[in-house]
Amino acid sequence: MGCRRMVMEQFLIGIDMGGTNVRMGIVTPEGKVLKKAQYRTDVSKGGLALFEQLVSNLKDLIRENFRESNQLIGIGIGVAGPIDMKKGLIMEPPNLPALKGFPLGDFLSEKISSPIAIENDANAFTLGEGWVGAAKGCKHYCGITLGTGVGGGIVVAGKILHGARGTAGEVGHMVINPKGPLCGCGGRGCLEVYASGTGIRRMALEAIEKGKGKGILKWSGRDPQQMTSESIFKAAQSGNVTAKKIFNEMGRYLGLGLINLIHLFNPEKIVIGGKVSRAWDYFIGSVMEIVQERSMKGPSEKLQIVKAERGDDAGILGAAYSALKRAE
Amino acid sequence: MGCRRMVMEQFLIGIDMGGTNVRMGIVTPEGKVLKKAQYRTDVSKGGLALFEQLVSNLKDLIRENFRESNQLIGIGIGVAGPIDMKKGLIMEPPNLPALKGFPLGDFLSEKISSPIAIENDANAFTLGEGWVGAAKGCKHYCGITLGTGVGGGIVVAGKILHGARGTAGEVGHMVINPKGPLCGCGGRGCLEVYASGTGIRRMALEAIEKGKGKGILKWSGRDPQQMTSESIFKAAQSGNVTAKKIFNEMGRYLGLGLINLIHLFNPEKIVIGGKVSRAWDYFIGSVMEIVQERSMKGPSEKLQIVKAERGDDAGILGAAYSALKRAE
Repeated sequence: MGCRRMVMEQFLIGIDMGGTNVRMGIVTPEGKVLKKAQYRTDVSKGGLALFEQLVSNLKDLIRENFRESNQLIGIGIGVAGPIDMKKGLIMEPPNLPALKGFPLGDFLSEKISSPIAIENDANAFTLGEGWVGAAKGCKHYCGITLGTGVGGGIVVAGKILHGARGTAGEVGHMVINPKGPLCGCGGRGCLEVYASGTGIRRMALEAIEKGKGKGILKWSGRDPQQMTSESIFKAAQSGNVTAKKIFNEMGRYLGLGLINLIHLFNPEKIVIGGKVSRAWDYFIGSVMEIVQERSMKGPSEKLQIVKAERGDDAGILGAAYSALKRAE
Repeated sequence: MGCRRMVMEQFLIGIDMGGTNVRMGIVTPEGKVLKKAQYRTDVSKGGLALFEQLVSNLKDLIRENFRESNQLIGIGIGVAGPIDMKKGLIMEPPNLPALKGFPLGDFLSEKISSPIAIENDANAFTLGEGWVGAAKGCKHYCGITLGTGVGGGIVVAGKILHGARGTAGEVGHMVINPKGPLCGCGGRGCLEVYASGTGIRRMALEAIEKGKGKGILKWSGRDPQQMTSESIFKAAQSGNVTAKKIFNEMGRYLGLGLINLIHLFNPEKIVIGGKVSRAWDYFIGSVMEIVQERSMKGPSEKLQIVKAERGDDAGILGAAYSALKRAE
């Protein structure tokens, strides 16, 4: 028998950095998540403490899992945008103001020797779903995450859209209703104020103030302060009419946002994920209705609007994918 | 003296096909318009008659100006979208319904032997301004034409955005106000119903019905039927308060549309052209005001909003540019 070469296996690390949870995963170059770690974090500690904790946990993960440093192709991290991609700088995240101005690129490259790719968290979600999820094989597609805020990513000819400085794809901050409520970004009536968890909560509070849908409160211990989009979803599932109406309304606004994406990007698919998307059955009807009623026939004809497939892994996967593309 | 090779000069033809005027130009590969021809057309004759007339005039132009067929690199034609780029098919233009379903690619390749590039007219405008106009040198920019309708084009990393089928960039059909007036596309409150010539005329008619701004009619021979965005512009120039307010209002809505483009594409520049843009001084103030007030700081920080520079030539130039890119 002749000489047999040892092939060393190589991996990626993907990090999904949220305001309350940070998820890390070891990912193969084929998009398989081999191992995951997760810890809770507290955004009120400020950007520096947050990222010091991240580096410490990341180093542990590397020490425990990689015998040789060249086994690690690279590390990708998805974090709240907008991000100045050239400078690796977090700009002014409407939902994570504590991170404002944090020089993430410089900070990480000082502490970590492996190559690092920084990506907007919603872009990471979108890339993950395109790599090994609901948009696999698509060249032109959009991703939307419905969470505390509304994030999004746009893929054009197989590449995530970054724009001039890297802040493109702020889907949650399209103006949907110019006379609508104020948004964290400084605008008014953005998609985010209707289709996010925060927006759903606001709509429920407004309904309760008007004396409607008090039954919704049953699912948050009768306390309006404890009410979340999840407790409102539970109310809808139990048949509460006002809760159902809220998700219908949210779906109508989300549909208007999708029309803009359809007319501007002519995507093959729009993938919707994030924790609020669990209420899919309660909003997708009114999404489809308004899209069919109001979008131009040509651009929408072959479009598919689908649910994300990779759940909480999408962010890890997309971050790892960014690191893989960077290494190529 | 040794042998000296004859270098044959080569040119492009760019065609800007509108509903009332068709403009043709002979263009150098460096973007200089050498010769122009223009004729009036009548869209009511239907797509076939329109394009037969086009072919006849085009053949005349070629016969009169090109001695050898290989002097002509290619022909580019900008026409009302949306266009199915793969099939070369005009889909359902909201402002030129007569062209609906016309198989332009097949029709032209049967009659003309030179290579032909078909492009959406607003994309052609955008490409022309990027080639040798207001967005020269930009990699990421958006173009908007304010005419009978509102058209647009998006350039991402130096390429015009076509999307899955070729219908991307329908900037005029972003929803700006979901409770707004019906739009020709089937939607409601699209940018087009506010920022187009048709939209401005509608706003003026509404004002007059309410008993305001009758002075506007002075510029259209006292006949509301004869009123156009141009006569309303003249009224504004002469100091008519209602006409000025209409352009202010139009600028506010246009600004909301720009915010969406800024948040989605993070462009370096937005170039605004088209005949309605002649009223620039009467709407740009309110555009800038709302953009500064409501757009996210990061994406808008280094953005420039500028006036188109190539006037009626932009469409010819962009169509020629498409033909040039096709030939490369």
